[in-house]
Amino acid sequence: MGNAQREAWEAGKMDRMTTGKLILLRHGQSEWNASNQFTGWVDVNLTEKGEAEAKRGGQMLKEQGILPDVLYTSLLRRAIRTANIALNEADRHWIPVVRDWRLNERHYGALQGLNKAETKEKYGEEQFMAWRRSYDTPPPALADDSEYSQVGDVRYANLDKVPATECLLDVVKRFVPYFEEEILPRLKNGENVMVAAHGNSLRALVKHLDGISDEDIAALNIPTGIPLVYEFDEDGQVLNPGGTYLDPEAAAAGAAAVAAQGGK
Amino acid sequence: MGNAQREAWEAGKMDRMTTGKLILLRHGQSEWNASNQFTGWVDVNLTEKGEAEAKRGGQMLKEQGILPDVLYTSLLRRAIRTANIALNEADRHWIPVVRDWRLNERHYGALQGLNKAETKEKYGEEQFMAWRRSYDTPPPALADDSEYSQVGDVRYANLDKVPATECLLDVVKRFVPYFEEEILPRLKNGENVMVAAHGNSLRALVKHLDGISDEDIAALNIPTGIPLVYEFDEDGQVLNPGGTYLDPEAAAAGAAAVAAQGGK
Repeated sequence: MGNAQREAWEAGKMDRMTTGKLILLRHGQSEWNASNQFTGWVDVNLTEKGEAEAKRGGQMLKEQGILPDVLYTSLLRRAIRTANIALNEADRHWIPVVRDWRLNERHYGALQGLNKAETKEKYGEEQFMAWRRSYDTPPPALADDSEYSQVGDVRYANLDKVPATECLLDVVKRFVPYFEEEILPRLKNGENVMVAAHGNSLRALVKHLDGISDEDIAALNIPTGIPLVYEFDEDGQVLNPGGTYLDPEAAAAGAAAVAAQGGK
Repeated sequence: MGNAQREAWEAGKMDRMTTGKLILLRHGQSEWNASNQFTGWVDVNLTEKGEAEAKRGGQMLKEQGILPDVLYTSLLRRAIRTANIALNEADRHWIPVVRDWRLNERHYGALQGLNKAETKEKYGEEQFMAWRRSYDTPPPALADDSEYSQVGDVRYANLDKVPATECLLDVVKRFVPYFEEEILPRLKNGENVMVAAHGNSLRALVKHLDGISDEDIAALNIPTGIPLVYEFDEDGQVLNPGGTYLDPEAAAAGAAAVAAQGGK
């Protein structure tokens, strides 16, 4: 090959190596974040603060020119509204949307609806943290007739069984295969994909992306409303381990706030 | 057949005959509705009044138990936000979404951006009404380098050519085949389909559904924010010609207001 040919070949190779960006967005503050209750699959709304966080997240995308080509959301209002608000702000309200229950928050079992501080006081720090952060032990199951159960909710009619509780491993098992089958091919194809989801469904995905151990994942906290961006090579391997927050300072403060939950 | 068999057969036949409802929703008041400007494909936002209309539309769906299973929207912010707000209100924020440019408002050509009252004064009532309501004569084409042109807008990158102007016939040609291929099969399959769109794209569809002549369609006005519901037999024929507004009184007042546009 002559030099001109080689340059053209290299340029083409570079083009083929350009993969899309994965943009993770945890929903802004919800009503039950504000009242310090375990939420899980209960479909609470955003607070005004949460709406403002979503707006700010969308502004970051626009300012930094990281624009999603397609949106994936859970089936829960707080993630859907966060995505709607952020995309409207980034002038990407018109992109295609895919919603799937596999992106839902971890089902919190019988803890759904309980106050976090009261639960910690009643059961003690150790049990409280085990329920929040144990990788493979779910909280006690929620009764099907509880007001906080999703049994009978039409949006889950296509599931064999609506969960009554989940540990983080359960979320990994439902979400990671979905990511690999549905989302990763789009990234390899050069599309920027936004995933609007939840603290624990995003922790499950980040555990997979960064190869975090079952033990170390307990210490990882994802802040609300700040886009976290991963880049990939053409084999689907992460190029920037840990991802890149679009506002790293606010992200560090936000992660510390999540870690401190359970206080009054 | 015995009586029991016959009853079972009849019941099965009835089940098969249950088709879905088509729910048409014209977006609430936009910024350029408020300032009396021709809008077309220019992507203006809702006003606060438009947001309130969308919310009220969602409440009607909820109150009357007419709940969409899937949403179709245009690629324009005012329809997308109207749908988001209405579905959130109706607790159907989680349904699947399809967006397509074929649901877009009629492209208003060189009129896009102009004030309706000034245009009427400048060109006279007859020309003004011809541009607004002529079935097959489009307004003058919009220049590609106009600030109101959509040439170069990434959301239309897959179109052979971005329109420079359209008459209602052009909208019928793009939207009705899409309706028949994409939406009607879902209705026949028993799904309730919400279409969040625009004054003229909905007029194009209603013309088809109700078999309105090229002349008579000029007099049809669709009010903003009030769900208009059509029911179908299993052959896809409309069972309630003219459709059913969920708030008929408000719909009549709203249609009169649309008809009066062009006044100051």
